[in-house]
Amino acid sequence: MDDSVALLTDLYEFAMVDTYLDENLHDEAVFSLFVRRLPARRNFLLACGLEDVLRYLETLRFTPEQLDYLASLDRFSDRLLRYLERFHFSGEVCAVPEGTPIFGEEPILEVVAPLPEAQLVETYLLNQIHLQTLAASKAARVVEAAGGRPVMEFGLRRMHGSDAGVKVARAAFIAGIDWTSNVLAGQRYGVPVAGTMAHSFVQAHDDELEAFRAFVRCFPETTLLVDTYDTLRGVQHVIRLARELGDGFHVRAIRLDSGDLLALSRAARQMLDDAGLQRLKIIGSGNLDEDSMARLLSQQAPIDGFGVGTALGVSSDAPCLDMVYKLVAYGGKDRIKLSASKVLFPGRKQVFRMEEEEVARRDVLARHGEQRPGRPLLRPVMRAGKRVEGTSPSLAEIREYSRRELKRLPPALRGLEPVTPPYRVEASPVLAWTREQLTEAWEASP
Amino acid sequence: MDDSVALLTDLYEFAMVDTYLDENLHDEAVFSLFVRRLPARRNFLLACGLEDVLRYLETLRFTPEQLDYLASLDRFSDRLLRYLERFHFSGEVCAVPEGTPIFGEEPILEVVAPLPEAQLVETYLLNQIHLQTLAASKAARVVEAAGGRPVMEFGLRRMHGSDAGVKVARAAFIAGIDWTSNVLAGQRYGVPVAGTMAHSFVQAHDDELEAFRAFVRCFPETTLLVDTYDTLRGVQHVIRLARELGDGFHVRAIRLDSGDLLALSRAARQMLDDAGLQRLKIIGSGNLDEDSMARLLSQQAPIDGFGVGTALGVSSDAPCLDMVYKLVAYGGKDRIKLSASKVLFPGRKQVFRMEEEEVARRDVLARHGEQRPGRPLLRPVMRAGKRVEGTSPSLAEIREYSRRELKRLPPALRGLEPVTPPYRVEASPVLAWTREQLTEAWEASP
Repeated sequence: MDDSVALLTDLYEFAMVDTYLDENLHDEAVFSLFVRRLPARRNFLLACGLEDVLRYLETLRFTPEQLDYLASLDRFSDRLLRYLERFHFSGEVCAVPEGTPIFGEEPILEVVAPLPEAQLVETYLLNQIHLQTLAASKAARVVEAAGGRPVMEFGLRRMHGSDAGVKVARAAFIAGIDWTSNVLAGQRYGVPVAGTMAHSFVQAHDDELEAFRAFVRCFPETTLLVDTYDTLRGVQHVIRLARELGDGFHVRAIRLDSGDLLALSRAARQMLDDAGLQRLKIIGSGNLDEDSMARLLSQQAPIDGFGVGTALGVSSDAPCLDMVYKLVAYGGKDRIKLSASKVLFPGRKQVFRMEEEEVARRDVLARHGEQRPGRPLLRPVMRAGKRVEGTSPSLAEIREYSRRELKRLPPALRGLEPVTPPYRVEASPVLAWTREQLTEAWEASP
Repeated sequence: MDDSVALLTDLYEFAMVDTYLDENLHDEAVFSLFVRRLPARRNFLLACGLEDVLRYLETLRFTPEQLDYLASLDRFSDRLLRYLERFHFSGEVCAVPEGTPIFGEEPILEVVAPLPEAQLVETYLLNQIHLQTLAASKAARVVEAAGGRPVMEFGLRRMHGSDAGVKVARAAFIAGIDWTSNVLAGQRYGVPVAGTMAHSFVQAHDDELEAFRAFVRCFPETTLLVDTYDTLRGVQHVIRLARELGDGFHVRAIRLDSGDLLALSRAARQMLDDAGLQRLKIIGSGNLDEDSMARLLSQQAPIDGFGVGTALGVSSDAPCLDMVYKLVAYGGKDRIKLSASKVLFPGRKQVFRMEEEEVARRDVLARHGEQRPGRPLLRPVMRAGKRVEGTSPSLAEIREYSRRELKRLPPALRGLEPVTPPYRVEASPVLAWTREQLTEAWEASP
């Protein structure tokens, strides 16, 4: 992990920590990271990003150069700088595993640590869990829309920067995408990589057929992009190439990237079938999202697989989540917050998923330590600043876990349309009572 | 620049380069990077990201580990691996300076290089210019909406990953934002940093007034966040603190972060004024974007400055641009592309901005080398793989340049509402004729 992340935080974290040190506020704090409300078109979210968070917490240190920079701001005390010089995270983390479907108000993770430590790590934790949960949640919709057909994500060029590039590819794979175009995600995480060809390749040649010939010489089992000039003429060129090569023709698919994909895929399928190329697949791409994919398939478009770019890469219909990291307890006392429409459930928590015949029916948000029926979702993943053994699944294991968890959602929830009423998340009586008591106590205060 | 960016690309770039090498296609290619159409609510875009692109082009190399990974995919030729082993970018780049307002179809940059080199760099160039242009364009709207009041951006926690975190902060500063909360952006680029306090700070204390007292002891000239429990009771606490401290009270502002900011800012202003605290400023924040800011100010909300987070950080109303990197010439021949609604202007280009009395009236998209009236926007910034001297302005210079360029736009264009008809960008007669000829030639081809 790049050293520079130590300063990838909001300035106010340092200011607050400085003041905590001044006041000697080192008691145990509990911070809860959760999404307040789901975006309108999400029936659930897929938690993701824990791996980066744990690595960050294990390795966060401040270099002399970073401390010099902070000192140069002429705003912080020597006390803070000395504290940061020796900083390491010593706290505890409970979290839902990556790939778990979660809902509003449910903690994705909780940090239990001395107040200054738990405060200092806020921004990076949010930055990573937000992005990766956002991406996995969008990708799960795309996978659902593909109805079992393979999907490749190739949104790197319009994802927001290099970090999003690799993290979104990983999150999308966890959510069920089959391949990424992103080579670094392949190298770093082992996500399977794939790729076809760009229009520029065709354009660089004097004619399209010549371009196809050249590409197939190097990559016999490739996918040919047929829409650079005119999609159906492109298909004719593929057919001509198949005739030229005879048994040596091993091209697997053609890709349609523009125009009316329903009409074009039908016409292309017909042409290919007529030419005896039934086994040649048709891949659809070109500004697709889960809605256009689902529409094409509901109209029986003969599309065998999809390439999805920008819409997945930036979660275009919901590019952010209302995700927060809130203090819920300090020094053993529950804490609340009453800002307009941002009221908080106090205290450390557990989420119980109530299932019948392996299908989730509702979740109960309870106080940590409550004994309740249902499957608890939050597990200890870090203690005293070290990962708990056996909580570092491989990427393949996370993906498989996520697939199983998604299957346990009510089918309507996995669909693209908003479910009304939404999946039920209720507070346990004890939790509800605690919030009421704290609110009343505050209202009665001077 | 982190080594790993060499693999931060789409797999197909390597496949295409491999084939170009096989075919010996090393002639000069021209690629043009531009936005096809502006998002519905953008009257212009602010070009940004060139600095990272030039650094990438100057330093791009492949390490032995990276080549091993590519070899392990068992898909590329030794010829490709040997080529990458010796790779360095030797081409030329023309670009509009960072901070230049641009429109649809106008090249933000053009790469002129041997085909394999120009192809290989596609994905990273798009990834960086897309993100940074997106962010600068959104930030320019936020700055406009603030009507001269200072604006701080603090969206790091919900920006898409670490790279977006620093790049968006830099882009927003170029577009006129005054401060960022992002400490790394401060250290790396010298963007001024600022910060206030979080609700968790107030919650960690047994009462709000005690929290204010503690914070002000450490940071006397701070901004106090007053909405943790009840905004107007928070304001009362600030007033009480002012009385306690007398001449020792140096707090500069209060921050309202939730609720009805119009009503609350009026009530807070009244209370502060009645208490003789006229000089205390009011900062508004809480899910603000340019529209809500403009609305508040049009209703005369007494807000002296703004904090803007997520909406700016992810460009929430338009989280992506239709930005592409297209081959427009190869081996001295113009190239076109005729895919449905993605038709391309062929050849290397220049953009001439036609101004009257220092206000832009229309742009003319012309062929490179055409002599025309108007101010040419594209300039050579790299030759033979090295930066052209005098084309590395400081961040402050870029910001000042951008401010001047924005002032030269017609005022309506800088407003938040879409201008109809949009700003005029026309093709020069020579360019229009070239496209027509190429299209006709293609249509007449067998």
